[in-house]
Parts: sequence; C-alpha cells; structure tokens
Amino acid sequence: MCELLAMSANVPTDICFSFTGLMQRGGNTGPHKDGWGITFYEGKGCRSFKDPQPSAESKIAKLVTEYPIKSESVICHIRQANSGAVCLENTHPFVRQMWGKNWTYAHNGQLKDFKAHLPVKAHVPVGSTDSEHAFCWLLDRLHYQFGEHQPSAQDLFQYIARKADEINQLGVFNLILSDGDYLFAYCSNNLHWITRKAPFGEAKLIDAEVEVDFQQETTDNDIVTVIATQPLTNNEDWHKMTAKSWHLFKQGMSVLAG
Amino acid sequence: MCELLAMSANVPTDICFSFTGLMQRGGNTGPHKDGWGITFYEGKGCRSFKDPQPSAESKIAKLVTEYPIKSESVICHIRQANSGAVCLENTHPFVRQMWGKNWTYAHNGQLKDFKAHLPVKAHVPVGSTDSEHAFCWLLDRLHYQFGEHQPSAQDLFQYIARKADEINQLGVFNLILSDGDYLFAYCSNNLHWITRKAPFGEAKLIDAEVEVDFQQETTDNDIVTVIATQPLTNNEDWHKMTAKSWHLFKQGMSVLAG
Repeated sequence: MCELLAMSANVPTDICFSFTGLMQRGGNTGPHKDGWGITFYEGKGCRSFKDPQPSAESKIAKLVTEYPIKSESVICHIRQANSGAVCLENTHPFVRQMWGKNWTYAHNGQLKDFKAHLPVKAHVPVGSTDSEHAFCWLLDRLHYQFGEHQPSAQDLFQYIARKADEINQLGVFNLILSDGDYLFAYCSNNLHWITRKAPFGEAKLIDAEVEVDFQQETTDNDIVTVIATQPLTNNEDWHKMTAKSWHLFKQGMSVLAG
Repeated sequence: MCELLAMSANVPTDICFSFTGLMQRGGNTGPHKDGWGITFYEGKGCRSFKDPQPSAESKIAKLVTEYPIKSESVICHIRQANSGAVCLENTHPFVRQMWGKNWTYAHNGQLKDFKAHLPVKAHVPVGSTDSEHAFCWLLDRLHYQFGEHQPSAQDLFQYIARKADEINQLGVFNLILSDGDYLFAYCSNNLHWITRKAPFGEAKLIDAEVEVDFQQETTDNDIVTVIATQPLTNNEDWHKMTAKSWHLFKQGMSVLAG
C-alpha cells in the first residue's frame, strides 16, 4: 500500500510541516520505501519532485522539506509497491494535460484485472502500475464524455465520482486528483482530512518531533485543508471519510461532496 | 532568447559538469534569468526540476549540480522570456505523453503569429508561450498522421523534421525533443554538439572555473553526446549545426541526419 497527502488552500501555503511527517513513513516510521513524489501547483503551472529512493533517505525530499514552495494545491504520494516495479515511471503523482490544464493524480490501493476491465485507447500508460492505468482510463472516459471542452466543475466531478465508483469495484481505490483549482478526494477505505482556519492552534506531528503554531504562520483569512491517508498530527480532530464518499475542495473549502 | 542543453549517452551518465556551466548563464555569465528546467530520463520514466527563478541563484539548481542523477537522455533549458510571462507554466522543458512514452521538448527562438499558423485541437497549451504552442501543434500533427501507434524512428523523425521546417518559417526554431530513447535536434540558427568517446581527454568550462578529466570518470565503451546552443567548453571542438539541419541521436551516436 501507499500513503497519500494533499493540500488545498486559499492562499499560497507551504506544505513543509505535513511533508516532514509523511516522509518519515517512507522507510523510517512507515514501510513506504519504494519511492515518493510531490506535485506543487503555482498558478496553472505545476512542478513535481520525484524519487524512486525512500523518502526518509532522499536528498530531494530533504530539499522539499527545507525549501518552502508556496502553493494552493499540492499532491504527494509515498509508495509501497504492489503493482509494478520500483522505478521512476511507476512513481506517483502522475501528471497529464487535458483541456489546457495540468491534471495530477495519485492513488492508494490495489486493483485486480485492471487491464481487462479498464481498456485504454487515447491515453496510454508509460509505466506498469494499476494506478497509472486507471488514470489513463479515467482521462479516456473524460475525453469521450466531454470532448474538447471542460464542463462545469459540478458536472465534471460528479462524473469522475461515478467513474471512481466503477474503478473501486476492482479493489481498493483511494484517489486524489487536481487540476490546480480543484482538489478531488475519493475514499475507498482510508482517507482523512482536516480544515485549518482561524482561530489557528498548535499542531504536533505523529512521525517526527516537530510542532508548529499555525497562529504564527497565518493570517485570519487563511483556509487550508490537508488530506492524508492517516492523520499526521495527534492533537487535532481529523475527519475520517466513509467508504465510497468523496469531497471536492477549492481554495481550502469543501465545495461539493457525495 | 534562451539556451538549450541536451545529452544522449549509451550508459547512464550525469550531466553535472555541463549543467554547472549552463546554469551560470542564467543570471550570472549570461542574461537567461527567467527560469530554467531540466528533465532526466531513467528508463521510460522521467523527472523534471523546474524553477521560474534564475538558475544562478536557484537552490534547486544547486541540488541538481551536486546530485549526480545518471541518465541516458537529458534536456535542459534556461529562459530569457520573449513570449509569455515569467511563471512556472511557461518554463521549459515541456513533457507530454504519447504512445506510452514521455515526450520532452525545449525550444530556443521566437515564432510570429503562431496561433494563426499553428492551430491546435487535441493538444491544448497550458501556458502562453509560442514554444509550448508549437509543441502542442507538433503532437497534434503526429496524432493525426500516425494514429494510435508509434511509427518507425526513421519515419517518425523525418516527419518531425519536415514539421520543424514548417514551424521554422515563422521565425527562429531551435528544437530539442526526446522520448528517452532518441534525442532529436533541429537547428534553426544556433546549435552545437560534441560526441565524447575514448580516448577521453580533459575539458574546461567557459562559464565557471571547473575542469574535468573524463578519462577518470568513464570507461572505454562510453559514448556521450552533448548538444548546446553555444559550446560549453573552450578546449574541445564542437560541431556547429547549419541552418535547417537536424540530427537524431541514440545512445550517444548520431543515427540519422538531414
């Protein structure tokens, strides 16, 4: 299995605190040692840092921890391989373009017989994971359903939620998907989220000896939602998502759910 | 204008030496201060490091200089903006997927009236540069010409060379393109290359006080080609490409040219 981490915020915010906790689970406090990746959106652009090495030992992960890239949308993944070898082309997140946007995707779980059940045509996987294959199938479905123009967010993400239900029938499909504006989370069996806003308090990581006082780092208008496979802090109340439920976040707020 | 750097090698090779020279031109020995990016292939996978900050001052560029990522195909670009704002979505290289491969593209030059002359449909730009627009047009042409299956390298790159000729009529179009196996270079007006193989010698950077003795870093079987807008060393003989000529490299060797 793997662990997911994502953020949606109404002001460019760094994810150093949460990432510091998560990266420890990549070979230190957790077994997810088969690579990691993180994608930051800055406007319409995005950049990814990826490494097939364990995050707990990665020089690139260390840079990401220490270099506060401010972003309104972030997706991160640490991998414990179950489908596909440990190599760069199998390292999440996967980024592809559609409708003039960068779409970033990360998956936690396992899918059975995915090649037979999720045929792909226009979008062909580069690597050998069930995860990237399901992403390509989803993009194919969006392409054939909506054609050349992106539909309204409501139509789009309700359709994506139905397709996530279909994929989920093949196994476990916890999904994070973003186009930079919206952050979509689908829970198969394991996904938590928390929205931090004023009045901000202190937070303490589970996986590292790090505390932060968000009051010192924010303004009263900031709204930041963090989504993670397992809660990253032990003194805050995280929402546990129920099976087959989904949330759509924009600028840190839940704007649609099902 | 901008500067391009690329490498094709028959064994995974790091590009730290050449990158050390080039990054100095991003705000120090050269005026290309409007961002930079580099894409490394490792097998079918690739990873990019990008920064809209000047490379000479970038912490991420420093990491890339010091962290020897071994790759058989690398594309790098430092930008001096002329079309499109300085921001992440306008930062080269651009990476998109086709035929189950990652295609990486970087452009040096300027194109006039590119939206009118290069209509796009299936591949839509994310940013506002002439460069990414031309990349999308090229992918559209490949899609409609060859359909779902990648043709032979000879058919493919001869077709790409003809399309590069068309794009070049709109201005200046020095192009580097790779799918990880092949590295294609099209010269509009300014592109140089050098192939290093046994017996290896010493090389001295123009832009930094750095020398390397490749004899110490290689085996007799290694073949490494480096392509750059301007030569990066001052004690080696670089080939200057002529206008409208192109070279296709694989595993460090020129395998096709026109």
